[in-house]
Amino acid sequence: MPTELPGKDKLDLIADNLKPYIHRTPVMKSRLINEIACADIFFKCENFQKTGSFKIRGAMNAVLSLNDEQKSKGIITHSSGNFAQALAYAAKQAGINAKIVMPETVVPAKRDAVLGYGAEIIYSGSKPADRETKCEEVRNETGATFIHPSNDINVIMGHSSCATELFRDTETLDAVFTPVGGGGLISGIALGFKNFSPDTKIYGGEPASADDAYQSLKAGKIIPVSNPDTIADGLRTSLGDITFPIIKEFVSEIFTVTEDEIVNAMRLVWERMKIIIEPSSAVAFAALLNNSAVFKYKNVGIILSGGNVDLNSLQF
Amino acid sequence: MPTELPGKDKLDLIADNLKPYIHRTPVMKSRLINEIACADIFFKCENFQKTGSFKIRGAMNAVLSLNDEQKSKGIITHSSGNFAQALAYAAKQAGINAKIVMPETVVPAKRDAVLGYGAEIIYSGSKPADRETKCEEVRNETGATFIHPSNDINVIMGHSSCATELFRDTETLDAVFTPVGGGGLISGIALGFKNFSPDTKIYGGEPASADDAYQSLKAGKIIPVSNPDTIADGLRTSLGDITFPIIKEFVSEIFTVTEDEIVNAMRLVWERMKIIIEPSSAVAFAALLNNSAVFKYKNVGIILSGGNVDLNSLQF
Repeated sequence: MPTELPGKDKLDLIADNLKPYIHRTPVMKSRLINEIACADIFFKCENFQKTGSFKIRGAMNAVLSLNDEQKSKGIITHSSGNFAQALAYAAKQAGINAKIVMPETVVPAKRDAVLGYGAEIIYSGSKPADRETKCEEVRNETGATFIHPSNDINVIMGHSSCATELFRDTETLDAVFTPVGGGGLISGIALGFKNFSPDTKIYGGEPASADDAYQSLKAGKIIPVSNPDTIADGLRTSLGDITFPIIKEFVSEIFTVTEDEIVNAMRLVWERMKIIIEPSSAVAFAALLNNSAVFKYKNVGIILSGGNVDLNSLQF
Repeated sequence: MPTELPGKDKLDLIADNLKPYIHRTPVMKSRLINEIACADIFFKCENFQKTGSFKIRGAMNAVLSLNDEQKSKGIITHSSGNFAQALAYAAKQAGINAKIVMPETVVPAKRDAVLGYGAEIIYSGSKPADRETKCEEVRNETGATFIHPSNDINVIMGHSSCATELFRDTETLDAVFTPVGGGGLISGIALGFKNFSPDTKIYGGEPASADDAYQSLKAGKIIPVSNPDTIADGLRTSLGDITFPIIKEFVSEIFTVTEDEIVNAMRLVWERMKIIIEPSSAVAFAALLNNSAVFKYKNVGIILSGGNVDLNSLQF
């Protein structure tokens, strides 16, 4: 864990600095879903965020944190998901060069979105080690700054802006649920509420088939999962040495959910709220639904983390 | 046409009276869609409306317009779509009895939604004449007041509240597009803008395979279509003797769109705006896209009329 965690003033400043680059996403409510879940739920709609997910918050803050020399040499990351689009967009906003390492097997729509934002794609093999080696190679050649999709304190503090907004726009929340993949979002949300509303408890939802955070908290050390198979494609990554200690200290519990529970929760949001969320977002909501007895009549925030769905391969 | 059309004061009063029963739906914008359409588009999101469509506006106003004797005898309509749910919900709010005539072949989800609001379903054969005969029978037996899903001045004036809100929430609009089925929505929107902003032109979008409004305006008389086949299931009905003269006088033009254009426009909204709209809603947007050269750089309102979609039979 970084020795010094950010305080309220720092997080307020970051949220203010991000304002020109991101949407202040709405908080939505649904009477019908409240009835089903027996709780008063505040959905923070990051599916409406620029680039379609919360990732722009962390990506943009990481870019804004670079010094001039770093900016001149550009940035690099590896991602075939929402962080790729987010970092490409953030780099474009800052007028700097971005390189994204993606597996050759990436789906064309995701590749095209990154190219559309003007970033350069560097292809690697499809194993995690392949992309890391490729990233390292390019860094050595170009001096580009590597920005990890989740295990980076500037990325995490950028995600805290989501907590800042949610805190400002809602009544006192008893609990907030977020999905857990690499742990960047839940770390940022946890740091935010620790500062703004320390009594609000933070919970993570994780696919049972990619339950590295659940396993890691149980074991007290990072237990990565390899090649997990889940519809929640944003949550296949594992915790890192920055996210794990933050989660260990500030997150109350990680709940796992099955694939069917993810699809059912996603369907409920689509049908009742008429908004499109991606499976990863539904994981947080499914975690609440599975534990609704514990949160009966509570004020609960749920981070709907993104809305990037391939309409050609829906699971309904 | 009713000899006396409502003025601004009347429509303001109706909009105020409806407030406790409906959502003031948001107006959404999308930079990407503006770029694609080369216009500044204000999407009025009736997909987020109570019961999932704008129909509650007209249904509720019709119910609020009943006298005590009428209320005591209840109401009846025939609909297997959004008006059925809307009228059932409106009746529940007013504490009166509602009977909905539906074909025996109605999809279970729509039947269940109506039953969920506490209305009584009366089954008829599946031809239009069957349901009208059944309606007439029940009216004679019970004295229930018949409320037509579109061809009813109280329903139309209720729909005008959508124009009232859109006018209040936007800059001056050059044009507003709505889908056209029975013509209730476009009549209400046209009456609203005639009063609030007479320079705003009103356009209708209609499926080419259910183009009765287009044909009727061309012929100068009502030309109904029988058994039209279109994915826009809310637009299969034809104009009536109240809606037709209003449309003839206050609507600038009806544009027809193909089935592919409907699906493409729907997909664009789902993918770019992350909201769920039903095919009927996409018809209005498709009509704008087809004519974007005419509306270049204009301020255009589009009524996204509803979001009730069967996720089990998507056309993507």
